[in-house]
Amino acid sequence: MAPQLEPFFQQVDNLSPTFVDRLRKAVAIPSVSAQDENRKDVFKMAEFLASELESLGAEVQQRPLGKQPGKEHLELPPVVIARYGNDKNKRTILVYGHYDVQPALKEDGWATEPFELTEDSQGRMYGRGSTDDKGPVLGWLNVIEAHKKAGIELPVNLLCCFEGMEEYGSEGLEEFIQAESTKFFKDADAVCISDNYWLGTEKPCLTYGLRGCNYYSISVSGPAQDLHSGVFGGSAHEPMTDLVQILSKLVDTHGRILVPGLMDLVEPLTEDEKRLYPDISYTMENLHESLGSETGIHPTKEQTLMARWRYPSLSIHGIEGAYSAPGAKTVIPAKVIGKFSIRTVPNMESADVNKLVFDYIRAEFAKLNSKNTLDVWLQHDGKWWVASPKHWNFTAASKAVKQVFGVEPDMTREGGSIPVTLSFEQATGKNVLLLPMGSSTDAAHSINEKLDKRNYIEGSKLLGAYLHYVSEEPMKA
Amino acid sequence: MAPQLEPFFQQVDNLSPTFVDRLRKAVAIPSVSAQDENRKDVFKMAEFLASELESLGAEVQQRPLGKQPGKEHLELPPVVIARYGNDKNKRTILVYGHYDVQPALKEDGWATEPFELTEDSQGRMYGRGSTDDKGPVLGWLNVIEAHKKAGIELPVNLLCCFEGMEEYGSEGLEEFIQAESTKFFKDADAVCISDNYWLGTEKPCLTYGLRGCNYYSISVSGPAQDLHSGVFGGSAHEPMTDLVQILSKLVDTHGRILVPGLMDLVEPLTEDEKRLYPDISYTMENLHESLGSETGIHPTKEQTLMARWRYPSLSIHGIEGAYSAPGAKTVIPAKVIGKFSIRTVPNMESADVNKLVFDYIRAEFAKLNSKNTLDVWLQHDGKWWVASPKHWNFTAASKAVKQVFGVEPDMTREGGSIPVTLSFEQATGKNVLLLPMGSSTDAAHSINEKLDKRNYIEGSKLLGAYLHYVSEEPMKA
Repeated sequence: MAPQLEPFFQQVDNLSPTFVDRLRKAVAIPSVSAQDENRKDVFKMAEFLASELESLGAEVQQRPLGKQPGKEHLELPPVVIARYGNDKNKRTILVYGHYDVQPALKEDGWATEPFELTEDSQGRMYGRGSTDDKGPVLGWLNVIEAHKKAGIELPVNLLCCFEGMEEYGSEGLEEFIQAESTKFFKDADAVCISDNYWLGTEKPCLTYGLRGCNYYSISVSGPAQDLHSGVFGGSAHEPMTDLVQILSKLVDTHGRILVPGLMDLVEPLTEDEKRLYPDISYTMENLHESLGSETGIHPTKEQTLMARWRYPSLSIHGIEGAYSAPGAKTVIPAKVIGKFSIRTVPNMESADVNKLVFDYIRAEFAKLNSKNTLDVWLQHDGKWWVASPKHWNFTAASKAVKQVFGVEPDMTREGGSIPVTLSFEQATGKNVLLLPMGSSTDAAHSINEKLDKRNYIEGSKLLGAYLHYVSEEPMKA
Repeated sequence: MAPQLEPFFQQVDNLSPTFVDRLRKAVAIPSVSAQDENRKDVFKMAEFLASELESLGAEVQQRPLGKQPGKEHLELPPVVIARYGNDKNKRTILVYGHYDVQPALKEDGWATEPFELTEDSQGRMYGRGSTDDKGPVLGWLNVIEAHKKAGIELPVNLLCCFEGMEEYGSEGLEEFIQAESTKFFKDADAVCISDNYWLGTEKPCLTYGLRGCNYYSISVSGPAQDLHSGVFGGSAHEPMTDLVQILSKLVDTHGRILVPGLMDLVEPLTEDEKRLYPDISYTMENLHESLGSETGIHPTKEQTLMARWRYPSLSIHGIEGAYSAPGAKTVIPAKVIGKFSIRTVPNMESADVNKLVFDYIRAEFAKLNSKNTLDVWLQHDGKWWVASPKHWNFTAASKAVKQVFGVEPDMTREGGSIPVTLSFEQATGKNVLLLPMGSSTDAAHSINEKLDKRNYIEGSKLLGAYLHYVSEEPMKA
């Protein structure tokens, strides 16, 4: 039986000026986590969130994380955790978001003041953090407020975990989540994260997978210092020549990874999974629009999305130590470090990938017969994540989308990684759902970041409706 | 008949404290041509030189070169030109040097103040510009002074051309030389340049060849802006992947250039030329010492020197637009520009080299079947130069070396380029000799630049002795 959501929806519509005002106040606090001089604003933003949550009746704590590693003169911003409702007969949903933002300066090319929420005639609300991630975070607050005003009880217990360092590596968060999984977060039945985006601009999506990332460095060194190419060109082994040879053996123009055995680790495509793709609202024009060119590799949207979501990729990012400025310099660099990464998917285990990569690169270098010295190492890795889209957490969200937007959501994965997803899954052992509010055109991390008013207001309805469907879903889906 | 040089040599020895003092005064003027704030010092150094030359009885002019292109607030330093002697019955030798220096800061790692000439117990005189090129320039002044003091007439007419922008591209000099070739320099019978170095530390050399340099850029572009490798890795053609493929086709680990047809342009090695190499004072240990490693390509000194001097080489210098900082960044660069250069030798004409390079790179890129866009262009070229080491200009210098140092000089070429050499040859149509004063350990352009007192004092004798032998050599050698 569908829950009765009309009174809640009505209140969201009535309160929408208040909700926009809440977002305006939040955007006005330049809580840029990457810049020392804004650390006080990140704290101010935590205070703002905590006070809003308290005035709505939540039990709130601001939990310190200590000094910032490597920048010991700075305190890390607190994790704002909150509980709203404590009814043993209700499901408990743990929601995550972040209240810090990317840097932004008007002179970077913003059309409006980045820390003043500015709505245009199309209902686009411009401002740093509007979509990433203040809008979604405030969405949960809006849900509570609209329920209170409508006189409807929240159908679940809500646990909030809002961090202030997401744009700077989520310093300290993983340990915090791990520690609280048996304490503040121990009742959580499922997790919902609203910090990604729709695939397009019209149709909401639920995200059930992310690729991992193994990031590698290859160094080649020879002479003790940089050499002049006039003096030594032709008589000394050049590290750059060798590095370029090795990098050229990693991936071909069509994105095919050349490391033997690597593709054998990839989970085969099933017919079931294949069927998820044709209905997804995405076109080759969408790809060309986001590339700004027609340089896509694959001819169909299905192949394109699979290449992005469920197959690995290898990208060469650059070379450290070589000449990288404009102009001309006739240097033979003494030591060069190539950087590349592999986006990983089920069932590629990091250790297996590393072994294949290291063995292959060392073997290829040996073939060169160079007197230079090669080293290859993993800089960092992050695991891929795939959840079951048939879990009640997802079916509830899917029904909520249908209710609010009148369409079935796209079931999507993402090519990039959102490490906190895996942290929550591993710490709580519960299903994690990514339920985005913003659309693909929101320009998170770029100039002119925005959140459409529709996404914010209907998105607040979606978050609330999701909680209602969650409370009604049978235990086993 | 060998000229009577003893009285001159005696005077050089007597005057050596004066000569060292002259060098001390010159080093104390920080005539750094690359730094705006030192431009006044470059002018001061021109004034110093002009006044020293005048007091020795030379006819001197400081010739302005106008505003500095691209830095119109700066006047270019003058070319100091001088004539000493105007006897139609004597040969006229045009000598070149430069009075500007590379930048230097104590904090770069100098053991002494860079602009204070500091002699150590081994007779090493440290100071910026000591060897490059103030010592050699003052050597010519020392020659005049020692002749005057000895009461010996200079056996040739001397024309001087001392410039103040050599370390910053010799702005304006080529046009000046061209213009004066029919005026101030019109009597020159041969040219002598002292601005390079001995191959080692013990044995002087005469340099009769230089490699040229063609510097290329290859750009590959695809998307309109940088992409996130998580989102687009695997679905878009990556410019960096393509560039690395192309760069890997240019040269192999052993320095073999892979551009088809290029080696066919190289002048074959003759038996005559081959015979010049075994006697050259150079060892594989010298190579390893200057590399700071044992990563030389060739097993013998002959092959090593030929690879440096008389065969072309191709070096990949770096990539502009890719990620080049330490650490990890998961970017797919939108446009990358690879830089490489080819050191050219007889008979590689620049236009022929360009055509082979462009055709090959375009053909290799076409094979990739990429949707990205490639461009390749020449950034700049400079021609190789080879003089006849049998010309009287060289035989005179060779006899002078034998007289002063008691050994036959090494007949060397250089792997790098000294563009002014070609400018003088082309403008005057006369034989050009490179007659270095400093040794291979002088660290020109580095910290702790020095000139050994022996090289300075015996070098001044060498320059004078050379002029005497020049006056006695038969017209045809």
